[in-house]
Amino acid sequence: MASSSTFSSWTFYGSTLAPKTTKHCSKFIYSCLNSCFNQTISSISSYASHDMTSPNGKGVDWAWGGLSLKSRAQCGALEVGIESSYSVGNKFQLEDVIEAQQFDRDALGAIFEVALEMEKIEKNSTGSQMLKGYLMATLFYEPSTRTRLSFESAMKRLGGEVLTTENAREFSSAAKGETLEDTIRTVEGYSDIIVMRHFESGAARRAAATASIPIINAGDGPGQHPTQALLDVYTIEREIGKLDGIKVGLVGDLAYGRTVRSLAYLLAKYEDVKIYFVSPDVVKMKDDIKDYLTSKGVEWEESADLMEVASKCDVVYQTRIQRERFGERVDLYEEARGKYIVDCDVLRVMQKHAVVMHPLPRLDEITVDVDADPRAAYFRQAKNGLYIRMALLKLLLLGW
Amino acid sequence: MASSSTFSSWTFYGSTLAPKTTKHCSKFIYSCLNSCFNQTISSISSYASHDMTSPNGKGVDWAWGGLSLKSRAQCGALEVGIESSYSVGNKFQLEDVIEAQQFDRDALGAIFEVALEMEKIEKNSTGSQMLKGYLMATLFYEPSTRTRLSFESAMKRLGGEVLTTENAREFSSAAKGETLEDTIRTVEGYSDIIVMRHFESGAARRAAATASIPIINAGDGPGQHPTQALLDVYTIEREIGKLDGIKVGLVGDLAYGRTVRSLAYLLAKYEDVKIYFVSPDVVKMKDDIKDYLTSKGVEWEESADLMEVASKCDVVYQTRIQRERFGERVDLYEEARGKYIVDCDVLRVMQKHAVVMHPLPRLDEITVDVDADPRAAYFRQAKNGLYIRMALLKLLLLGW
Amino acid sequence: MASSSTFSSWTFYGSTLAPKTTKHCSKFIYSCLNSCFNQTISSISSYASHDMTSPNGKGVDWAWGGLSLKSRAQCGALEVGIESSYSVGNKFQLEDVIEAQQFDRDALGAIFEVALEMEKIEKNSTGSQMLKGYLMATLFYEPSTRTRLSFESAMKRLGGEVLTTENAREFSSAAKGETLEDTIRTVEGYSDIIVMRHFESGAARRAAATASIPIINAGDGPGQHPTQALLDVYTIEREIGKLDGIKVGLVGDLAYGRTVRSLAYLLAKYEDVKIYFVSPDVVKMKDDIKDYLTSKGVEWEESADLMEVASKCDVVYQTRIQRERFGERVDLYEEARGKYIVDCDVLRVMQKHAVVMHPLPRLDEITVDVDADPRAAYFRQAKNGLYIRMALLKLLLLGW
Repeated sequence: MASSSTFSSWTFYGSTLAPKTTKHCSKFIYSCLNSCFNQTISSISSYASHDMTSPNGKGVDWAWGGLSLKSRAQCGALEVGIESSYSVGNKFQLEDVIEAQQFDRDALGAIFEVALEMEKIEKNSTGSQMLKGYLMATLFYEPSTRTRLSFESAMKRLGGEVLTTENAREFSSAAKGETLEDTIRTVEGYSDIIVMRHFESGAARRAAATASIPIINAGDGPGQHPTQALLDVYTIEREIGKLDGIKVGLVGDLAYGRTVRSLAYLLAKYEDVKIYFVSPDVVKMKDDIKDYLTSKGVEWEESADLMEVASKCDVVYQTRIQRERFGERVDLYEEARGKYIVDCDVLRVMQKHAVVMHPLPRLDEITVDVDADPRAAYFRQAKNGLYIRMALLKLLLLGW
Repeated sequence: MASSSTFSSWTFYGSTLAPKTTKHCSKFIYSCLNSCFNQTISSISSYASHDMTSPNGKGVDWAWGGLSLKSRAQCGALEVGIESSYSVGNKFQLEDVIEAQQFDRDALGAIFEVALEMEKIEKNSTGSQMLKGYLMATLFYEPSTRTRLSFESAMKRLGGEVLTTENAREFSSAAKGETLEDTIRTVEGYSDIIVMRHFESGAARRAAATASIPIINAGDGPGQHPTQALLDVYTIEREIGKLDGIKVGLVGDLAYGRTVRSLAYLLAKYEDVKIYFVSPDVVKMKDDIKDYLTSKGVEWEESADLMEVASKCDVVYQTRIQRERFGERVDLYEEARGKYIVDCDVLRVMQKHAVVMHPLPRLDEITVDVDADPRAAYFRQAKNGLYIRMALLKLLLLGW
Repeated sequence: MASSSTFSSWTFYGSTLAPKTTKHCSKFIYSCLNSCFNQTISSISSYASHDMTSPNGKGVDWAWGGLSLKSRAQCGALEVGIESSYSVGNKFQLEDVIEAQQFDRDALGAIFEVALEMEKIEKNSTGSQMLKGYLMATLFYEPSTRTRLSFESAMKRLGGEVLTTENAREFSSAAKGETLEDTIRTVEGYSDIIVMRHFESGAARRAAATASIPIINAGDGPGQHPTQALLDVYTIEREIGKLDGIKVGLVGDLAYGRTVRSLAYLLAKYEDVKIYFVSPDVVKMKDDIKDYLTSKGVEWEESADLMEVASKCDVVYQTRIQRERFGERVDLYEEARGKYIVDCDVLRVMQKHAVVMHPLPRLDEITVDVDADPRAAYFRQAKNGLYIRMALLKLLLLGW
C-alpha cells in the first residue's frame, strides 16, 4: 500500500481544469485518498454544480492535448497508484459520446485498448470498484431493453450505481411539455453521467450542449448510435486481428440500417479497406455513403451474389430487414427479407478465419444452425458492447 | 480508529425503544460494530418483524423527546465515533413523513441543518456509505420520474440500495384488487423504508398506520407532497438567508397547485412574513388558505400587477397553469397561461438579492432567457430536493 | 484471518467442473482471495464465456454428488474460512430452478437449512456482502411486481446487484421477433444469473437449455412457479415444525391455482400427509393431482364443510378465486367467491397450533379481522419467500 508521503505534494487547482473534468477528477482523487487513508476529509472544493454550466453551451468538443499538461499530470500522478496502465500521458479527454464521426483512428485505438482491459476485469474477478460512488442516469425516451441493460451492466461491473427510466417520453415531465434542456438540467443534479436514448435526431447533441456532466448517446432516432458503431469495429479487430486491409460484406437493409451506415463511415478511417454491398434493390446503400467512401479512397462495389462475396470477405455483416420501413407493402418486405440469408451454405464458402456479424436482434436472416460454428461472432459482438461501454464510462468519469 | 474499549460498556435494551426506532437503530449499531471490528456477531435481537406491528395502528406520531434519554444516549454514544454532528442530544425522532403540517419551525430548522450536511457530502466526495445495507422501496402508484429519481439518487448517494416500481397501480397486485394495507405489509418485508406516491389523498397516512417501517409520502393525489414543501422552504433560507421577515409573491395557478398551498402553510410558521397572490381569476388562491394565514397573523394581499409585486418581493414563486384542470375549456386555459410570465422585464424590476423559484416542470411561464440570471433559482431548488431527501432518509433510518 | 499459507496449495482445475459451476466457483474463490489479502490478482482463467455453452443444450439436470469429490473439496477448502456451515460435503449442485418436481425431500431439507441461515442474516445485520460483485437480471415478460421485488430484495440483501426489465415482452427485441434463446444468449453476457417470468409454459426450461448461467423460473404462464411452492412448504415447516404427518386443507380455486397444485405435488414427498380439498364445484381439484396423490399413497378427501376441515387441519391454505377464469360468467364467479371465506368463525374452530396460509394477493376470501390472530401466517409466508430466494441465489451462485 502506498505510504502517505506519496501524496504529500498533492495540490488541487480546480480552476485550471475544464468544467466536466474538474468535477469527476476531484471526485476520483477524493476516492483514492479516502480508500488509502480511510479517513474523512471534510471538503476539497465547494463550488456549486450550477456554476459549471456555460451559458453559451460547449458543444461536443473533445481534443487531444486539450488540457494543460499540468492538470493532466496531477491526475496522472494520483491515478498511478491505482490503475497505472491508464495514466498514459498525452491522451485526449473524452467529454461526451455523441456520434461515431467524433473519433479518429487513434482515438478508436486508444478506446479499444481500454476495452481490452475491461474484458480482463469482467472475466477474472467479481467486478471492479473503479466507479464506486458514481451514479449513471439512463434517460430513455424510447425503450431499448438490450442497450439499456448493456450500459447498466457496464456501470455495475465497475462498481457504479444506476438510476433508470425507460419511459421518459410517456411518463416524465416531457409529457407535460418540459423541454429536453430543462430535463437535462434537473437530471444532471441527480447523477454524474447521463446515458440517453431519444426519438429525435440531434437530441443527444442538444443534451450535451446543456449538461455540465458527460452525455452518452445511446441512439437518437434515425440519427446516431455511436456505441454500436464502436463495438462493431472493436469486434472486427478482436476477431480478425486487424482493421487495415480487411474486406467487409455489408448485407441486408443498407438503406435504413444506421448500423451499417455508421460502420461504413468508421471503416473509411482505415487503410486498404474493401467494402461489398449486398442488398435487395428496395433497401440499397444510399449515395451519400458511397460518395463518402469514394472521397476517402475506400474501394467498394455492389453485388447480388452473396456466395461470391462471402468467399472473399473477412467479415460478413448481416442485418435485419426492418418491417416497419415497408408500411403497407408487406409483399415488398417479404420479398426483401428472404433474399439474402446467411446459412450453412454461406459458411461453407467462407474462409476459415472469417466471421459472421449481426447487430441483433435477428429473425431468420441468419439460420439457427450457424450459431454453433465458431465463426458465428454475433453473440461475442453483443458482449463486446459491454466492454466498449465499460471503457467509455471509465474514460468519461475518470479520464485516462 | 476507535479502540474496542470505547464499546465495552455498550448494552442493548431493545424493549425500551419505540418499534420503528428499534429495528433501524439496532441495524445501525450493528453496522458500526461490524465495520470497526470486522467480525461476525451472530445475533443481537431475534424478534420477527411482524411482532412489531400494533394491531391498532400507530398513526403519524413523532415527538420531541419521545424516546427515553437512556435509549437515545446509547445510540448517541455509538454514533459519536461515526458522525458526531448528529448526536445532538434531545432531538425529535422522525417516524414517517406524511404531510407538511407535521413539522414546526424547530423541526424544519433541524432538518435543514442535516440537509446542509448532506450538501457537503454530495459535493465533496464519491458519496457516503452511511446507509449501506439499507433498502428503500419506491412504490409509485402513478409515475413521477423526477420525484422518483430524486429519491433514488438521495438513497444511493448515501450508499443505500433501491427497489423500484413505477407502475404499482397498473401492474401490481393492486390491479387484482389487493388493498393498499396488504401491499404495504408485503413490501415492508422486502425493504427498510417505503417512498410512496399514490393517486388518492390520504393513502400515505393509511400506509404509515399499517407499516412497521418508515413511510415517506412522495405525493398522494390532490393531497400532500411534503418533501416538495420542505425543499421550497429550504431553498428560500439558502437563497435569501432568512425566513422571518420575507416577502413572497406566489404567481400562477394558486387554486390547484398543491405546491403553493403547502408553501403558504409552512411560511405561516415564520414571523413577519408577507405573501402576495398574483393569479388569473380562474385559478385564484382559495379561501381556506387565506383564512388560515389571517388566523396566524400572516399579512397577505392579492394583486394583478406582477411587476409591482416582483419589485417588492424576496421570492417570486412562479407556477405552471395546469392544462388538465380546464377540461374542454381550452380558451380559458390559453387566456390564463399567458397572463403572468416571468421574463427579463420582471427580472429588471426585481431586487438584486431576490430570486425566482418554480417547482418545475415549466413551460413558458418563465422565459428561457431568465435562466442565465443568477437570480434564477429553480434548478438549484430542484437540486435542494436531493439534499432534503437525503436528510429525511438519514433521519428516518439512522435517527439523529 | 487466514494466513496466506492456507491458500498456497490451491490450484484450479476448471475442466473438471461442470460448466455453470466453473464460472461462479472461480468467481467466488477469486472474491475470497481478494477480500482476504486485499491484493490484485490479474487473472485466474481466461476462457471466454461463449466457450462454455454446449451446443446440444444441457437440460435441467442437477445431481447429488454430480461433481467429483476433488473439485468440490477444493471449493470447500476455500469456502471454509468464509461460511463454514455451507461446506457440508456431499451436497448436490443446483444449476437451475425450473420446476417444483426437480426437488426431492432431501434437497428441500437442505435448501430450507440455508433459508434459515438467510433469515438470521436478514434479521440481524445490515445485509451480507456474500454476493458482492454478482449481477442478477430480472427478465420479466409479464409484470409481477411482488415476485420481482422479492427476488431483487433477496439479491440486494446479499450484497448483489440487479438489472431489471419488467416489460420484456412489449419493449425488448422480443417485440421485433427475436427468439427467447437469442435474448437469453445476449442477457447472459450482461449478468451472472437470470430470474425469468414468462407467459408461456416451458419457457424457463428452454432458457435453461440455452444459458451457460443459472436460470430461476419466476413463473411461466400456466406452468410452474417453483419458488412459490418452495416457500409454501418452508412456511409449513417453520410454522408447524414438521412436514410428515400433517393435515392440510386446500381451499378455494383448486382447478386453476398453480400454487395449490404444486403444493399438493410437493406434500406427496412426505409421510402420512392428509389433504382435504374444499372448493366450489366449478373450480374443483382436477383428477391428475388426485390420481398422483393416490399413486403416492397420500390420503385425500373432498369436503364441502370448511368448518369441519378447519377443525382438523394443521394448515388451512386459502386461495383467491380468479375472476379472469370465468370470462362472461360473472354470476358463476360471484357464487364461487363467496362460498368459502376464512373468518373469525373459522379461526374459532381451528386448533391452537394451526395456521392460515394464502399465496396473496387476497381479496375478501380471508376477512381482515383474521390478520390480528397469531395463526394468520400469510404475511410471514410472503416474507419466507425472501429467505427461500436468498437461499436459492446463494446456492446457484456460490454453491454449498
